Amino acid sequence: MKQLNVGILGLGTVGGGTYKVLTRNAEEISRRTGVNIKVTHVADRNIEMAKAQVAADVVVTDDAFSVVNHPSVDVVVELIGGYTVSKALLLAAIANKKHVVTANKALIAVHGNEIFSAASANNVIVAFEAAVAGGIPIIKALREGLGANHVEWVAGIINGTTNFILTEMREKGLSYQDVIGEAQRLGYAEADPTFDVEGIDAAHKLTIMSAIAFGMPMKFDEAYTEGITRLEQVDIQYAEELGYRVKLLGITKRTDDGVELRVHPTLIPEKRLIANVNGAMNAVVVKGDAVGPTLYYGAGAGAEPTASSVVADLMDVARLIDASSAQRVPYLAFQPDQVKDLPVLPIDQVKSAYYLRLRASDKPGVLAEVTKILGDRAISIDAMMQKEPEENETEADIVILTHITVEENMNAAIAAIEALSAITGKVVRIRMEELAK
Amino acid sequence: MKQLNVGILGLGTVGGGTYKVLTRNAEEISRRTGVNIKVTHVADRNIEMAKAQVAADVVVTDDAFSVVNHPSVDVVVELIGGYTVSKALLLAAIANKKHVVTANKALIAVHGNEIFSAASANNVIVAFEAAVAGGIPIIKALREGLGANHVEWVAGIINGTTNFILTEMREKGLSYQDVIGEAQRLGYAEADPTFDVEGIDAAHKLTIMSAIAFGMPMKFDEAYTEGITRLEQVDIQYAEELGYRVKLLGITKRTDDGVELRVHPTLIPEKRLIANVNGAMNAVVVKGDAVGPTLYYGAGAGAEPTASSVVADLMDVARLIDASSAQRVPYLAFQPDQVKDLPVLPIDQVKSAYYLRLRASDKPGVLAEVTKILGDRAISIDAMMQKEPEENETEADIVILTHITVEENMNAAIAAIEALSAITGKVVRIRMEELAK
Repeated sequence: MKQLNVGILGLGTVGGGTYKVLTRNAEEISRRTGVNIKVTHVADRNIEMAKAQVAADVVVTDDAFSVVNHPSVDVVVELIGGYTVSKALLLAAIANKKHVVTANKALIAVHGNEIFSAASANNVIVAFEAAVAGGIPIIKALREGLGANHVEWVAGIINGTTNFILTEMREKGLSYQDVIGEAQRLGYAEADPTFDVEGIDAAHKLTIMSAIAFGMPMKFDEAYTEGITRLEQVDIQYAEELGYRVKLLGITKRTDDGVELRVHPTLIPEKRLIANVNGAMNAVVVKGDAVGPTLYYGAGAGAEPTASSVVADLMDVARLIDASSAQRVPYLAFQPDQVKDLPVLPIDQVKSAYYLRLRASDKPGVLAEVTKILGDRAISIDAMMQKEPEENETEADIVILTHITVEENMNAAIAAIEALSAITGKVVRIRMEELAK
Repeated sequence: MKQLNVGILGLGTVGGGTYKVLTRNAEEISRRTGVNIKVTHVADRNIEMAKAQVAADVVVTDDAFSVVNHPSVDVVVELIGGYTVSKALLLAAIANKKHVVTANKALIAVHGNEIFSAASANNVIVAFEAAVAGGIPIIKALREGLGANHVEWVAGIINGTTNFILTEMREKGLSYQDVIGEAQRLGYAEADPTFDVEGIDAAHKLTIMSAIAFGMPMKFDEAYTEGITRLEQVDIQYAEELGYRVKLLGITKRTDDGVELRVHPTLIPEKRLIANVNGAMNAVVVKGDAVGPTLYYGAGAGAEPTASSVVADLMDVARLIDASSAQRVPYLAFQPDQVKDLPVLPIDQVKSAYYLRLRASDKPGVLAEVTKILGDRAISIDAMMQKEPEENETEADIVILTHITVEENMNAAIAAIEALSAITGKVVRIRMEELAK
């Protein structure tokens, strides 16, 4: 199998996550790409910490330039952050005709035009999916999935720290000052949260999306930025009374006079899906002329969500290795000889929670009989609701939510319940999914 | 500029939409791909209708095989539907070494394994983004954007007809029988709605997603399918009382014993984003081990949303033409020489609606003065809320929501309002976006 040699610069949160995901999912990743994506070099100032995280055959150094200049490295992954050293490293890698993957939104938003121009001259990839909205593949959606569209506007919750703070302010009635401390304690906000709470981080990401959506250079300097520090609790309440939620939105829109590029607290009708994006999660709405509005939601930060995008970019690079083939991406996402004949479970072996509705005589003991039948089959009850009989009726509805069980157990329990003399007719059964983990 | 010659089979709703999008956005599409994607041939049984829709230089025929066999056609777009003719056409196109794009979910779910195997032998692309969830680029997200992940499960609202029906049942308290007629009148349901309401259409799409997510063959025959026709209004109500919404979900999940592949009505906690996807919209949640849950939302059907995906697939094919370049997808989505220096609007030229909060003396005439200031600047009021003064206070909050205006007008109005003797302190101003169109 062909191999792609990767050098990672910076083995912090995202760097460590990237190494972990590449290692843990190595088999699946090569089944998808047909390429062995192998971390061969790691650079970090803390050599001991780095060595403790990687396999013995990985070269660990504190000299990032030695990785960038190493002839066997095919792709450089820049996860150092900041502008100065990271920019010099990227440009050196590009000059060495190495492909580059970065999660550095500030660098791309501020120096992207220069970096792309160098990369173009050297015919190398600069991939930056991880720079915007963490694990959400929004760059790919904008560049490829929605490429048929004239994009009209993009609006996003693209900073998890501020969305966490706004969610807490709304749900707990707290002030900004109350919440920022809590967010710092929980690790949702930095010791100096300025970049996040003043909207600068969001403006970096918005700048990148505007360039891709509209085909214009990065214009971070011209972005309008207004943060959430002066937002008062009373306005969140009043907005709520009027049917709105307050979110820190990055908005970029085409108009006849120019492009809007702005980050600020924004009232959004509560019935919009994006108004219901809570906590540290991110979401982006893209409005295209053909597709209409589409929304992309997921974790906007964190070690492995960000690594998910870094590794997806590495896979795109790996797919170039055999560019002569039309099978850049295989039909079924996995290489044809790597498609496995996994068995499909029969429905009675599927595990699910259940909603049950039964019609029962309104007399003592019925509930005890029903719960015994469930208990005998190890089906535990999550919630129960017993309705009063309607006037002139002697029967009433009982609704039961169960915990997870195997469907054949549930079928047996339902048959037993239906056989009870106090139960009329069939038991209505609807499956229930938490969709949480 | 290089040209990609496209033959469209079937110029119905989606075929017509595809031609329209390719024509309307031709300039932007070639700015993105560097290729002129040109419809050269169209096949439709109704030649007159087809001729009326396309330019004079397009060859129109009622013989679809003549398009599939035409030497100058590079890509065949199959939008006929069904299994028999469409399959024969696809296989003939593949044998002729032409790339193929299709929106035919039934064909891919049932005959995909055979089609992919033929395509693999001939080294051509079979692209089918439009087969699942219309305009949402979910195939690309699963195959590429989330490729780093071990996918744990996928759950989606992937049939707009049934989601429309369930939304109406919940919001209006109607029965399935009441709503199906309305859905047919509005064009949300077919005259024979069986495929939709019995979950078969959703099972086709789910089968495709399971194959891509888990690297397994299409196993449509083993999918469990349960529709919404027997769902009763009372269960939707009870679910609501317990904090749940009922949705027709397609769920596919990896377990140690096998893969779950099932479509059925499902209770979902109402606080989940997907529980709030209403009307004919689609949404898919993908749970990856690295990224966590991500959600993709948009129009799941319709001429142009589906065309958006068909054309995105054509763009992927076009990008193969110059496969030797690392610039398969340009950095900024548009070819480097096609990036335009669009001006960014200064913030005071941006148009927005506004939330205003003012603190005013509780005496007559204040509101009249405020509304006159707004009216003089052509700022119209959408809603107003006047709070009662707190005990022992003589001032109260006034909250105003305005319609859209230019920010410099609003700034002038706010200055004038703040100058009123009855107004205390600064006016709080937060921008407001409908995000609807």
